[in-house]
Amino acid sequence: MSWNTFGRIFRFTTWGESHGPALGVVVDGCPPGLALAEADIQPFLDARKPGQNRYTTQRREADEVQILSGVFEGKTTGTPISLMIANTDQRSKDYADVAKAYRPGHADYAYDAKYGFRDYRGGGRSSARETAARVAAGAIARLVIPEVAITGYVEAIGGDAIDPARFDAGAIRNNPFWCPDADAAVRWEALVDAARKAGSSLGAVVGCRATGVPAGWGAPLYAKLDAELAAAMMSINAVKGVEIGDGFAAAANSGEDNADAMRPDGAGGVRFAANHAGGIAGGISTGQPVTCRVAFKPTSSILTPVETIDREGNAAEIVTKGRHDPCVGIRGTPVVEAMMALVLADQKLLHHAQCG
Amino acid sequence: MSWNTFGRIFRFTTWGESHGPALGVVVDGCPPGLALAEADIQPFLDARKPGQNRYTTQRREADEVQILSGVFEGKTTGTPISLMIANTDQRSKDYADVAKAYRPGHADYAYDAKYGFRDYRGGGRSSARETAARVAAGAIARLVIPEVAITGYVEAIGGDAIDPARFDAGAIRNNPFWCPDADAAVRWEALVDAARKAGSSLGAVVGCRATGVPAGWGAPLYAKLDAELAAAMMSINAVKGVEIGDGFAAAANSGEDNADAMRPDGAGGVRFAANHAGGIAGGISTGQPVTCRVAFKPTSSILTPVETIDREGNAAEIVTKGRHDPCVGIRGTPVVEAMMALVLADQKLLHHAQCG
Amino acid sequence: MSWNTFGRIFRFTTWGESHGPALGVVVDGCPPGLALAEADIQPFLDARKPGQNRYTTQRREADEVQILSGVFEGKTTGTPISLMIANTDQRSKDYADVAKAYRPGHADYAYDAKYGFRDYRGGGRSSARETAARVAAGAIARLVIPEVAITGYVEAIGGDAIDPARFDAGAIRNNPFWCPDADAAVRWEALVDAARKAGSSLGAVVGCRATGVPAGWGAPLYAKLDAELAAAMMSINAVKGVEIGDGFAAAANSGEDNADAMRPDGAGGVRFAANHAGGIAGGISTGQPVTCRVAFKPTSSILTPVETIDREGNAAEIVTKGRHDPCVGIRGTPVVEAMMALVLADQKLLHHAQCG
Amino acid sequence: MSWNTFGRIFRFTTWGESHGPALGVVVDGCPPGLALAEADIQPFLDARKPGQNRYTTQRREADEVQILSGVFEGKTTGTPISLMIANTDQRSKDYADVAKAYRPGHADYAYDAKYGFRDYRGGGRSSARETAARVAAGAIARLVIPEVAITGYVEAIGGDAIDPARFDAGAIRNNPFWCPDADAAVRWEALVDAARKAGSSLGAVVGCRATGVPAGWGAPLYAKLDAELAAAMMSINAVKGVEIGDGFAAAANSGEDNADAMRPDGAGGVRFAANHAGGIAGGISTGQPVTCRVAFKPTSSILTPVETIDREGNAAEIVTKGRHDPCVGIRGTPVVEAMMALVLADQKLLHHAQCG
Repeated sequence: MSWNTFGRIFRFTTWGESHGPALGVVVDGCPPGLALAEADIQPFLDARKPGQNRYTTQRREADEVQILSGVFEGKTTGTPISLMIANTDQRSKDYADVAKAYRPGHADYAYDAKYGFRDYRGGGRSSARETAARVAAGAIARLVIPEVAITGYVEAIGGDAIDPARFDAGAIRNNPFWCPDADAAVRWEALVDAARKAGSSLGAVVGCRATGVPAGWGAPLYAKLDAELAAAMMSINAVKGVEIGDGFAAAANSGEDNADAMRPDGAGGVRFAANHAGGIAGGISTGQPVTCRVAFKPTSSILTPVETIDREGNAAEIVTKGRHDPCVGIRGTPVVEAMMALVLADQKLLHHAQCG
Repeated sequence: MSWNTFGRIFRFTTWGESHGPALGVVVDGCPPGLALAEADIQPFLDARKPGQNRYTTQRREADEVQILSGVFEGKTTGTPISLMIANTDQRSKDYADVAKAYRPGHADYAYDAKYGFRDYRGGGRSSARETAARVAAGAIARLVIPEVAITGYVEAIGGDAIDPARFDAGAIRNNPFWCPDADAAVRWEALVDAARKAGSSLGAVVGCRATGVPAGWGAPLYAKLDAELAAAMMSINAVKGVEIGDGFAAAANSGEDNADAMRPDGAGGVRFAANHAGGIAGGISTGQPVTCRVAFKPTSSILTPVETIDREGNAAEIVTKGRHDPCVGIRGTPVVEAMMALVLADQKLLHHAQCG
Repeated sequence: MSWNTFGRIFRFTTWGESHGPALGVVVDGCPPGLALAEADIQPFLDARKPGQNRYTTQRREADEVQILSGVFEGKTTGTPISLMIANTDQRSKDYADVAKAYRPGHADYAYDAKYGFRDYRGGGRSSARETAARVAAGAIARLVIPEVAITGYVEAIGGDAIDPARFDAGAIRNNPFWCPDADAAVRWEALVDAARKAGSSLGAVVGCRATGVPAGWGAPLYAKLDAELAAAMMSINAVKGVEIGDGFAAAANSGEDNADAMRPDGAGGVRFAANHAGGIAGGISTGQPVTCRVAFKPTSSILTPVETIDREGNAAEIVTKGRHDPCVGIRGTPVVEAMMALVLADQKLLHHAQCG
Repeated sequence: MSWNTFGRIFRFTTWGESHGPALGVVVDGCPPGLALAEADIQPFLDARKPGQNRYTTQRREADEVQILSGVFEGKTTGTPISLMIANTDQRSKDYADVAKAYRPGHADYAYDAKYGFRDYRGGGRSSARETAARVAAGAIARLVIPEVAITGYVEAIGGDAIDPARFDAGAIRNNPFWCPDADAAVRWEALVDAARKAGSSLGAVVGCRATGVPAGWGAPLYAKLDAELAAAMMSINAVKGVEIGDGFAAAANSGEDNADAMRPDGAGGVRFAANHAGGIAGGISTGQPVTCRVAFKPTSSILTPVETIDREGNAAEIVTKGRHDPCVGIRGTPVVEAMMALVLADQKLLHHAQCG
């Protein structure tokens, strides 16, 4: 099956392959009357864009977004917003080997098993290039939730983690790694460089925090805020794990230490003593920051030959040439932010649908 | 919003509160002609049932399931299957305190923030008692995927993990903890007993493995097999993290070490050298075992007083009396298995819908 | 496939067979805080209930509804509302013939073709008895749209139509036919009596009007208000046609005569000179009464022998004994009203989800 | 709310306005491996295309379709198929009056009531131009159901109906009206010409028949084949009524006359004596031709001044200039065919999802 729509009220449908003429997204259910122009979307695409420094793939894509519908005189009309991004820097010849044999860790074998054949150029539909469409949709989602601020950052690369005590939100944009710890960013330069030169790759952990989410968003039991976030994040290429709040660390904790005690905040509201829960209880936001962590595996596109089979089932070896990210988690950070925005926008509208 | 349906083809809708007359589930989209009787469902409910040993809550529920529709002459008809489970052991008086003040870590505050008020008896709709309905639905899902065997187990309690080298599937049913490591099970007796006596609680990590899943199940990009599993697991009460395959460990790995090399198996198929990916690539099953790990937080129902606020916003303290699980992950294990079965059944039907 | 859920925000899922222990419905997405008790639902079930006069089937069902979840201290909680209605007057022995041969015009043959076999007792899932669940759900839907008044009525039986000039809403409840024309009601007594005595059956046209619907409800393009109404009405047993506003008569009209001219109403709003459109333009309500007409075929349950085939494909004859409605459109009227309420409640919530 | 996706397995999402740069559709869930090129779609767009004769609007659009994704080496890949059609012949200046005042019968007033403002150029999103996207998607749907042949035709224009005894499928393509009765086609020339010259408009009834549909398609109870068809047809611009089989005529019939008696066909199958039911019983296909009738109102775009109000609520008069169809039902015929194909393709996949 193919299922390329996400969301329940604020829904988006993506389309496009890595080496087709274009890719795009249709955003449906967006409230009317929001000011929207390409300039509101482009900066987010630019943040995700490849080829910006030596730590990401050297494929060069302008990633210029075009609004084809749903906006009139600068405002959303409430009808579907169609966005398109042309593919401009394709080198399909890089993929001759991929056509013949399966790249372990990639979707090649699974797509063939499912559909009988596949568009092998750059991974076709399974390419992380699709995430450009998510980022574009996410930019619109942000307009739906102006009360929310979303911050994504890289917590660890190749097992080398930031020092939480040195977390500095202001540092995130000052290095090529979305790293909130300036020291770690320096270390990662060498780390990622070495991997790139070796034709190797590194995994990463990406964190994301949304502040300003009011208490009450979430649709229990099967569209819980955390369950939707888990699906959203796990649907990103190369993601293998999702945590809300303390995540797996909570599993090693006691009930006493894991409690987020509550106190009156003196202004008619509540102040929480901690946020082990990541801002979500019973699948509903509590008014605390919504926090999650996402594990990106190292990309399987490496220069070291890997044993595999070809389409006929014969033993083969494959080396994944081409222009690849040594650490996909870096460029995954704007994607994580986008998915956070998309889930929150949808949950906001869902909440108001039922609860006024 | 309230969203109590899960699945796309094989869909189930649960209803019911902890202290209402009953809870239940409607399973829609089940293929016709499957042999089904209460006896096919009851063993799974019995496995989850409370009050079976001193390591779980002492609430005693028969959890007897009744089939109300969708079965004729012992076979599913293809029409909705309605299952009901009566609530029999309720002590609403235990919840007087809960009516007044919010239990930190529970859904109390969030439900009030969302809906304006809540059924506070036993957590109402947010009670883990709802998972009985999932387990019942999961028993039907298993009939849809007879080619698949699902094994859930507890990997760690309160931070004390099993030794992977001692993993023995045969041991899982021989101790009250679903523990595959007989030594760990002995340690956990003392650990959980101590927590229970102290009125404390412990988190847990539950693993789950499905063998027999053929290559090709999964609906990219927004109903990927791993994304659906992530949503399914994260929707379980107390779950804060989900990993597929190596999960967060993959984030610390290199591309070389993370590759699941492939070789011909000599019988026209493929043999994988490893399963870092947890049997899923590009959101589609690879034919390897599908594996995941799920983090359960320690329940917030503890005897230690916790600071909180009452419904009027005043400072308060709360002690969660009643009969609670010292480690909800234990009874969560059959629930994890059920959700695995429910996702796989749905994905199997989705796959055949499009790909024949 | 089996698809027993209707609606997008205010969703209901029905289950149950004619001769099972019970039937029911789960209503999900209902706003919280609405006063709800069985007494709010029962009158609508009583209006649909069989056996009330000699013009409907003599099967006697109490059709007592029981609320199993979703209500706490007399108010909806925002969580799923489970309703159950026990089946009490079943005579499965009436259906021995039906087990063997197909009743032309009934779902027997189609269900066997689809599912391989069927629950033949009283039509099983295809029985109009399922509509009791819709009526129960519809009663809750009405609480969501207190601004709307819905009036259903029978416009014609067996081709004998009311005189529109004699339409008297006050008459509808004063005869056993939901007839707004007292004269026609008298004629229909003889007409339906004759059909009943002859073991024959009659078709009917049911009209329905909803007043108080504000302008702006409807979800273009694929959940247009009229499209949703069409689906809702056509899903009722025995319905073969649906018209909005002038319906097929509009197809014989000119643009000039079909225009619903608009004038200021003197109070800041609009007054329409006519309502050919049935209160819907572009799939969105205009503020005028929403009107539709629904065609019910004569039931295929007749005493005249009809040529058919048996399950083995041999020629057979069948006479549908049992206790049947001579004109299903009569008891269909409360069902039409319920479906109108269910669609409008859903559209109201959908509208507010996007447009605030 | 905005809801621009139709279908459950074979789903399509349309976007675009009459006077934007383009319109399009994303088709998701299409089976892989089907041969598909623009040339498979273009003829259906050409059949619907405006400006082909003097009986339709003189707006001239090439309506050239471009496939942007989902096809590789001439075959569908199973991933989303994105189709785009550029708008080339726009005259936005025609719409100055429309910006100020509401055209009665059009969506103008309702869109403003819903969204607060609207794209008034050519009706924006409410323009029948959107149906080009449906027709394109319908061409793909046909590839999914090669066993089915679909024939749409106009049965009546302005109340002047064909003679059923003169029905000649071969005639349909030989006149500009999709008319199966050559005599009626001659009469309609004068009729439509007169309306066009007078700046008036005419309604129409369109029939559609699908042969080759096997018994068993349909998803009871809330995605019944007839209910899906009703929604699909009613969602087409200007449609006000839908009938399945005999439709409203059945409501005037007796059970005896309405029965579709069954006989063995001598080849292990069944032969029906009649098809009052339109090939659907209990919401499931019976193997007979699936037939429906659809009522199109006369377009509200007429040269006769109509009373209306402006955006400020003041009395106004409006004359709808521009280039309009004197009878939208004519060009609606390929759209009706497309919707029939789209529903059947979806139902085929749904059937196989559950029933193998």
